[in-house]
Amino acid sequence: MSESLSLWNETPAKKAIINYVNVISNPESADFVPEAERIAVLDNDGTMWVEKPVYVQVFFVIDRLKQLAEADPTLLDQPHFKAAATGDLTYFFKIDPHAGGDIKVLMQIVFDSHAGMSQDDFMLMAKEFMETAKHPRFGVLYKDLTYKPMVELARYLGDNGFKVFLASGGGMSFMRTVSEEIYNIPRERVIGSNISFETRMTDKGPVVFRRRGLVDPIDDGAGKPVNIELHIGRKPILAAGNSDGDLHMLWLAQKSGYRSLSLLLRHDDAKREYAYDEGSEKTLQMAKERGWIVVSMKDDWKTVF
Amino acid sequence: MSESLSLWNETPAKKAIINYVNVISNPESADFVPEAERIAVLDNDGTMWVEKPVYVQVFFVIDRLKQLAEADPTLLDQPHFKAAATGDLTYFFKIDPHAGGDIKVLMQIVFDSHAGMSQDDFMLMAKEFMETAKHPRFGVLYKDLTYKPMVELARYLGDNGFKVFLASGGGMSFMRTVSEEIYNIPRERVIGSNISFETRMTDKGPVVFRRRGLVDPIDDGAGKPVNIELHIGRKPILAAGNSDGDLHMLWLAQKSGYRSLSLLLRHDDAKREYAYDEGSEKTLQMAKERGWIVVSMKDDWKTVF
Repeated sequence: MSESLSLWNETPAKKAIINYVNVISNPESADFVPEAERIAVLDNDGTMWVEKPVYVQVFFVIDRLKQLAEADPTLLDQPHFKAAATGDLTYFFKIDPHAGGDIKVLMQIVFDSHAGMSQDDFMLMAKEFMETAKHPRFGVLYKDLTYKPMVELARYLGDNGFKVFLASGGGMSFMRTVSEEIYNIPRERVIGSNISFETRMTDKGPVVFRRRGLVDPIDDGAGKPVNIELHIGRKPILAAGNSDGDLHMLWLAQKSGYRSLSLLLRHDDAKREYAYDEGSEKTLQMAKERGWIVVSMKDDWKTVF
Repeated sequence: MSESLSLWNETPAKKAIINYVNVISNPESADFVPEAERIAVLDNDGTMWVEKPVYVQVFFVIDRLKQLAEADPTLLDQPHFKAAATGDLTYFFKIDPHAGGDIKVLMQIVFDSHAGMSQDDFMLMAKEFMETAKHPRFGVLYKDLTYKPMVELARYLGDNGFKVFLASGGGMSFMRTVSEEIYNIPRERVIGSNISFETRMTDKGPVVFRRRGLVDPIDDGAGKPVNIELHIGRKPILAAGNSDGDLHMLWLAQKSGYRSLSLLLRHDDAKREYAYDEGSEKTLQMAKERGWIVVSMKDDWKTVF
């Protein structure tokens, strides 16, 4: 086990994770968990990859809004089109849930920007964005800004009989374009917020289109247990998140009936990444009360990206 | 390969299935399909287990409606409560989609009968039904009325690198209570129709409850490609069904871009099971036009149950 989690420093957080996995996968242990019940759920934005200065998907949306406004300037009457067209990132900072914005409003803008497309066309467009777009501060592809210690953790869990799911407020389809490549997580194990789909029957067969309108609930906060039930049908025994949107999910893991592990990632490394607690105050407090592991990027990780 | 599909007769249907699986899993073949793309979707009612005289889940619901009407006789004003309380099965025959009924109406009754319960309580109740309730004609547990050649097919596909999903009009949670035991299909690979869920935060943490109201779309007809996109994020290369509710899904498999196999099960064995084409006329016609494999229970299967 000396090779496990090589990107983590030898701190209590790493020891707690490895001890937990050893105990629940040992058939001789009183806390043994059968493989079918070893479900892990990982938030994506801010837990598996960078979410600052705004969510990766928002940059994708800004590109699209710009294009749409160029084709139809009457759209500029709407503030999000105007902000995108003029490069006013502060508009999008303000509707970020970490800054007190409403994730429903944000996701409505995100999904409406690609409504009306076929799902196949959307997936191609999102894939192309992920292949080309670069982060404004780090200057590399967004998909290279995954947190390598967390990617390592996901693989370590898989190697120990876990089924590992992404369970994030971000758009499900957007994450699925790269989940296999960057996390080794298959598409069907990616849970997220959703635009409404419809099938139209054409003379070439059924085609799935993206409709205007959010699917309720957004996969955030109280919506996470709902979508976990929908996609998995079991309670997780391990959950990891980084914000108040993960609070319900982190607590849900403690209700599986098995020994559980809830992990809250704290962004406290302004040098290698960002430092902020905005939007995770409640969960940091709850972590103390309920014994969740708080991971410090600064102290617990050898590397970030 | 001589041991493959031992419960199938040596007919063209069996040969076509085995030939297909051999070809797509052979890396030397021009029709080779990588494992990540080997997605199979199987309808449940009438494809994997018996659906006559009415869907298994309807018997579960009748029990529940009876209980509710005993507790509150004012409910007897509503025809489905009255039919359940008086044992009038013909009422439920008439709303069966195979007899021209609307599956939305049927699923509304199904889901409303368990609305308001916690999801944990529902799962226990459904599990107990499956452990005890017997089929009126065959006198055995419903869960013993799976089609053994189809269960064998699901396992054969799994052994050949497929991810096998149930994709059925039936209630997702209801099927999940037994899918691992009777089909070897894990819960997260069961797709179905859904009641709306909500999370309520209690002082003991988050609890998922079943709300009144169908989730749109019902997982039938044009709803199947939508739910396949939601739960899998890929087009199937193999689909199996038995009714017009499966038409869209059977066609969808032909749109994966890979060599595909669509299989329509025909109920033509009144002696060992039932014989009926009602509710599958369109799909039988389409099967001829589009080269789908029609499986005859009578001719192609050594055994049914």
